[in-house]
Amino acid sequence: MRFVWDFARSPPEASEHLGVRGQTMSGLASAGLPVPTGFTISDLACRRFLGSGELPAAAWEEILDAVRRLRAAAGDRPLLLAVRSSPPVPMPGILGSALYLGTNPETLAELADWATLPFATVVHTDFLSGLAALRQVPRHRVEGVLTDPDALHALIVEESQRVIPEDAPGQLREGIEAVLASWDSTGARRWRRRHDIADELGTALIVHTMVFGSCGDRSGSGTAFSRHPETGDPGPVVVFAPGAEAPLGVNLGDITELEATSPEVARSLLDIVARLDDEHGDMMRVDFVSERGELWVLEVRPGERSARAGVRIAVDLVGTGRIDRHQALLRVDADGLDTMLHDRILPGHPSPLIVGGPASPGAAAGEIVFDAPSAVEAGRAGRAVIMVLRETTPEDLAGVFAAAGVLTAHGGGTSHAALVARGTGTPAVTGTDIIVDVGRGQVRIGSRRLAAGDLITIDGTTGAVYLGSLPLEPAVTSEALETLLGWADQVRRLQVWANADRPEDAALARARGAEGIGLARTEYMFSGDRLEVVRQIILTDDERERADALGRLEDLQIGDFERLLEPMDGLSVVVRLLDPPLHEFLPDRREVEQALRSAIDNGEPVTRLERLAAAVEQFEESNPMLGLRGVRLAVVIPGIYRVQVLAALEAVRRRLDQGGDPRLELMIPLVGSVEELHLIRDMIDEEVHYAGRQLEVTVGTMIELPRAALVAGELALQSDFFSFGTNDLTQTTLGISRDDAEEAFLRTYLEQGIMRRDPFVTIDGDGVGRLIEMAITEGRRVNPELVVGVCGEHGGDPTSIDFFHRAGIDYVSCSPPRIPVARLAAAQAALRHPAPGR
Amino acid sequence: MRFVWDFARSPPEASEHLGVRGQTMSGLASAGLPVPTGFTISDLACRRFLGSGELPAAAWEEILDAVRRLRAAAGDRPLLLAVRSSPPVPMPGILGSALYLGTNPETLAELADWATLPFATVVHTDFLSGLAALRQVPRHRVEGVLTDPDALHALIVEESQRVIPEDAPGQLREGIEAVLASWDSTGARRWRRRHDIADELGTALIVHTMVFGSCGDRSGSGTAFSRHPETGDPGPVVVFAPGAEAPLGVNLGDITELEATSPEVARSLLDIVARLDDEHGDMMRVDFVSERGELWVLEVRPGERSARAGVRIAVDLVGTGRIDRHQALLRVDADGLDTMLHDRILPGHPSPLIVGGPASPGAAAGEIVFDAPSAVEAGRAGRAVIMVLRETTPEDLAGVFAAAGVLTAHGGGTSHAALVARGTGTPAVTGTDIIVDVGRGQVRIGSRRLAAGDLITIDGTTGAVYLGSLPLEPAVTSEALETLLGWADQVRRLQVWANADRPEDAALARARGAEGIGLARTEYMFSGDRLEVVRQIILTDDERERADALGRLEDLQIGDFERLLEPMDGLSVVVRLLDPPLHEFLPDRREVEQALRSAIDNGEPVTRLERLAAAVEQFEESNPMLGLRGVRLAVVIPGIYRVQVLAALEAVRRRLDQGGDPRLELMIPLVGSVEELHLIRDMIDEEVHYAGRQLEVTVGTMIELPRAALVAGELALQSDFFSFGTNDLTQTTLGISRDDAEEAFLRTYLEQGIMRRDPFVTIDGDGVGRLIEMAITEGRRVNPELVVGVCGEHGGDPTSIDFFHRAGIDYVSCSPPRIPVARLAAAQAALRHPAPGR
Repeated sequence: MRFVWDFARSPPEASEHLGVRGQTMSGLASAGLPVPTGFTISDLACRRFLGSGELPAAAWEEILDAVRRLRAAAGDRPLLLAVRSSPPVPMPGILGSALYLGTNPETLAELADWATLPFATVVHTDFLSGLAALRQVPRHRVEGVLTDPDALHALIVEESQRVIPEDAPGQLREGIEAVLASWDSTGARRWRRRHDIADELGTALIVHTMVFGSCGDRSGSGTAFSRHPETGDPGPVVVFAPGAEAPLGVNLGDITELEATSPEVARSLLDIVARLDDEHGDMMRVDFVSERGELWVLEVRPGERSARAGVRIAVDLVGTGRIDRHQALLRVDADGLDTMLHDRILPGHPSPLIVGGPASPGAAAGEIVFDAPSAVEAGRAGRAVIMVLRETTPEDLAGVFAAAGVLTAHGGGTSHAALVARGTGTPAVTGTDIIVDVGRGQVRIGSRRLAAGDLITIDGTTGAVYLGSLPLEPAVTSEALETLLGWADQVRRLQVWANADRPEDAALARARGAEGIGLARTEYMFSGDRLEVVRQIILTDDERERADALGRLEDLQIGDFERLLEPMDGLSVVVRLLDPPLHEFLPDRREVEQALRSAIDNGEPVTRLERLAAAVEQFEESNPMLGLRGVRLAVVIPGIYRVQVLAALEAVRRRLDQGGDPRLELMIPLVGSVEELHLIRDMIDEEVHYAGRQLEVTVGTMIELPRAALVAGELALQSDFFSFGTNDLTQTTLGISRDDAEEAFLRTYLEQGIMRRDPFVTIDGDGVGRLIEMAITEGRRVNPELVVGVCGEHGGDPTSIDFFHRAGIDYVSCSPPRIPVARLAAAQAALRHPAPGR
Repeated sequence: MRFVWDFARSPPEASEHLGVRGQTMSGLASAGLPVPTGFTISDLACRRFLGSGELPAAAWEEILDAVRRLRAAAGDRPLLLAVRSSPPVPMPGILGSALYLGTNPETLAELADWATLPFATVVHTDFLSGLAALRQVPRHRVEGVLTDPDALHALIVEESQRVIPEDAPGQLREGIEAVLASWDSTGARRWRRRHDIADELGTALIVHTMVFGSCGDRSGSGTAFSRHPETGDPGPVVVFAPGAEAPLGVNLGDITELEATSPEVARSLLDIVARLDDEHGDMMRVDFVSERGELWVLEVRPGERSARAGVRIAVDLVGTGRIDRHQALLRVDADGLDTMLHDRILPGHPSPLIVGGPASPGAAAGEIVFDAPSAVEAGRAGRAVIMVLRETTPEDLAGVFAAAGVLTAHGGGTSHAALVARGTGTPAVTGTDIIVDVGRGQVRIGSRRLAAGDLITIDGTTGAVYLGSLPLEPAVTSEALETLLGWADQVRRLQVWANADRPEDAALARARGAEGIGLARTEYMFSGDRLEVVRQIILTDDERERADALGRLEDLQIGDFERLLEPMDGLSVVVRLLDPPLHEFLPDRREVEQALRSAIDNGEPVTRLERLAAAVEQFEESNPMLGLRGVRLAVVIPGIYRVQVLAALEAVRRRLDQGGDPRLELMIPLVGSVEELHLIRDMIDEEVHYAGRQLEVTVGTMIELPRAALVAGELALQSDFFSFGTNDLTQTTLGISRDDAEEAFLRTYLEQGIMRRDPFVTIDGDGVGRLIEMAITEGRRVNPELVVGVCGEHGGDPTSIDFFHRAGIDYVSCSPPRIPVARLAAAQAALRHPAPGR
């Protein structure tokens, strides 16, 4: 097998050894595009090099031959060479490159002659600083002598204890070996581990004649896109930097300058871009150099694009018959859709004051408020506010609903604040290192001390918090997106439901395409004004008093359920019976103790406070996540679930009387054994029976404990449906409390690659996923009618959706803003795995 | 099939339908023992009754026939009948009975005639109060009229709205139907659910002529045991209550009184008892009545016995060739052994002040102390002390080791205090409703306020706390037990290892028969004086300072490991690398805050306190059970595990130099993924390599997270052994924090039968057990050499040991005091399941 293939003469059988860059260059050269002359060194050379530490002698001979060909082709143009990696898949910025090889007094003189002396000097220092990087000379030492070639030369020799070869072959050999060695660097190994790429593959290299954008008039470099990368609008977009060596970032400009100075270059470029767009059936990006009015194409690849542009381009390509709908669906990054569906901060903003945890995507700006009443009042007055809290409690819920954004000191991605905010599409940043001083009405954010009424902007997508009110670009919904999602709906097998607690969330969900509510939490029905009633139920020892309080709660909830069922008429509404630990309905321990102390000091009555303090102490748990919550509440205080069931049934009855089509499903959380299910099912059956007419209510269980998955066969006999609560199932299966773990070790685990993905974002297939598969198999074995859904956060994550599709799940339920993402991801899963599970 | 069989004429083919009592009575009658005349109604009648709600007509005809035979046999003796349940397995006290049936003016007159009028009156009221119970007349109303037959009669009629039949057949029919119906009572259903007995089985009944122990001279009732039920000494023991109708409890007396008044009854009884002992090859209990000098045997069954007696009897029976060794091993209740191996409070003690959680068995009495230094000082002076604490922290460990007993306000069976106490065999009561006021040196226990130096007694078997120093019976070790355990060792396949942290525990464990240490926790190596060093490691940001502190810790630990390895020479010592969350090494949050406040008030320096407060805040976790602990510590602060490994390796080297045979095994806690295992294994391999000579160290992982069990195949490739940490595996699989749950809901779950057994005592086979089986199967598939042990508390529980044996576990590791229990239970498992798993 040969090691070296010239760009213009690479046969198809060599292509698997050329890497991405080598393939592109040979394709472009064959198609007659003006690429620099050059050749590819196949990955075989790299593999031999990694094994022995040396470039094979045969390879080196072939390389020298090829360089001779380059020299011949160059004629009397000064010849410098570039070496770049060409790995089997794109590894952006991970591997090294070596440029300006062949720089020595002789070629520098030629360059000065060919162009100018300053140009030659810039080439000289660029060569040396590149070499310094390859030889790992400390960056700070290099910076001191960047403009002085001789000092830089001396520094490199001193630091690396090696002379710099003067001859072109010597420099080339060093460059090739350095780029090959970069395949084996720690950074590259880590990157490959994360992306599941074998270390043994190795990288190919390309070597090409250097072309110069900075050598004088009618020179410069730029990037052209065949369509607009931000909007997806048809027609090319060109960025051109006159006199520059390489495109510096991408700030969209137009082609005017290029057309003015080098009209023929501009014309060729536009031809090429249009031709590539048509050939590839995709928006393409071309990096180019204009060298004294001559066009050189350096790289061609599919162009990066915004989510919005991605959708528009895919739909347009279907419109022109270039790709089919299935291809279009697979083209768009489902996860990316999220960004176009939320407000975002316009580019060019100042640095953030602080960065916390991105808990609910989107940006929001507004006045700081510290409590729910202020938020509600501002909301009524139409003022945008950011609610700033230590952490959210049920007392704050009304405020969260009314605020434009939420910023908290404590909690992570599954914290109460995050869940509620994501459910309503409110941007939120949690777990931020801020100090909230409610007493003084102040918050310390980074170095600034701010008060109520001060303006801030938060970005829930990145976790950043900014001073002042930054300009926002509003969320985009486009016709193209609607078209794409319509195609997605025709393809997908997975249904997409929503997690929505309140009527307005349900309406939003339905508008976004939700086919049911997979999780309606009932916690908010116990919050606000009703907290006092809930506390009475918890605190009293008097059975009659408790029954009275329960009765009042029942009456209040009937309307809640009625209003929730109404917008979802004809679609399932899965109501989860109460889940959170009791202590969440009690005040903070420290607050109570303080109140008690001051009451004692002031000689005020203390009986009620003492009772409260005792209850707070009683319900304090060292691990509330594994404590008295979910169905366990129903065993210890049976009345709570009973009034929820009664109220929900009465709401169904009323909806029926109004001619509605309510589809109530009751869901029991934190079930671990069939005995618990028996207990609650018996109670529900009893109440359905007492309700007089035969109401149709299905009853199902959440699967959120490993044990529930392990005894799924038993549970399925007593369940109309399973709903996987993947948040808690992940916490228990992995033994990780998400709120604590994110800061404490999860970040380190992800950084060090001990975990590849955040298991709270993407389902852990080997652990949690295996339990899910077991539970589905055993559940359906005993109950083939069993409906199976997912109502954890993973229900809105594309990779997880792919897994759920394969596992035979019937529906995923996610927060309303994620519904478009889920619809697309479900379609992509169906296209990738046409005949899965069920 | 017939429904009715006379005791004396039941053919063998009927026996499966007679129930336990019916079988016994027919056996005794056939053997010529003086049982009352009577008959059995087969369980077929019960099943028909449960189906239709009526006694089959044919059955009733057969019953009336049988009653006619009883009447004929009675001659001119007044005939009253008793109906008792005869379920398929003993259900003590669960089902009803109906006595004195046939009581009416006529028979009462006959009884008065046959004996005395007061006797007849007692019979009358006994009949009526029994009937009142069957008809569910409220107990408090019955109590008011217990001595007035007419009023009682009227009350029953009023409450039940039914007359009382006067005729014997009418009363008999009501009695039979009531006892049959009791099979279907809530209590009976619940009992059966707990004991896995099908509801459909139904119960047989026996009906027999009543005999009377209270009808005058030479009458009375009693119980005879063929051997001593407390000690197991050979020879009969008889309790006799003259003039009483039924034996009232069992207070051991002698046969003197019976011999004096009825020598022929005494002689027959002793003959019968000796004969039964010989026939059954077991210690038998005979309930009897002497009716005017005539002996009637009412019931015969294997006698209840103390653990000590059980061992002695089983060994004696083998000595006389009556049973073989295997039978002897199966005869003894393994769990019961525990009681004979601990001190216990002598009977006849006062009521406890309070009852807390039984955390470590055995009784202890001593002076109250509130802190570790006092406990250590008292221990040195030879004074017995009970350490009373809010909860234990690593700072208290030395005190727990020195104390005779431990009493804490917080924590449950897996709390720190409980684990440490069980490991050292120190009695402990935890989670008690006491108020510890360390400041004032006082504790409120129940209604009493006690101070340091006051005497109390605790019973860690029951959780009771008593005022004063009660007399204790010391633990018994008997020759018989040693013999029995010797036989057990020959039979069992499971090895029994010990959980032992310190040299003295290891020595004790080896003396009790431990074949290795399956869990040596290293937490105590970070406690006491060393806490300051540990805090330095946690608090500092200076890498050099941390390295210094780590170095000091390493030096200190070398001796610890050396001393631990020495007593276990030639046996495995599994050292678990550090497991607990970091905050356990920091002071209590409230203490630090208080100290900080008072320092500020007094103008004292606060820098260190502020740093401490910040660290306490940083490491505070909402769910520490699922937080930064175990192997996660090693990822975040790599130095901690490295110094443990270095110190352990150095200890091995030193032991080898001393000619010892150290068998170190390193165990990594809380592993959830193979990547974690890689990380630590790599570090250990590196250090083993650096250690110069090739030290043999095996490395294994705990399986205590569901995910670890689910990816066991991957883990097994990197593990020499698995050790199931069943405490944590139960907590995560079931989603139950044991400490919180016991009080909050676990007790309710057990009481209501939602759980049959406490999953923290007996392994949950369907959930946790299934994970264990999966992990063993997959682990051994990829690594057939894999050694598999259990080091959770379940390792000392007989039912769990049976499961582990079947699952193919290699060894169980339990606290040293449980070793005899585990040796016997392992033998029993091997006898019950001769060819399991491996």
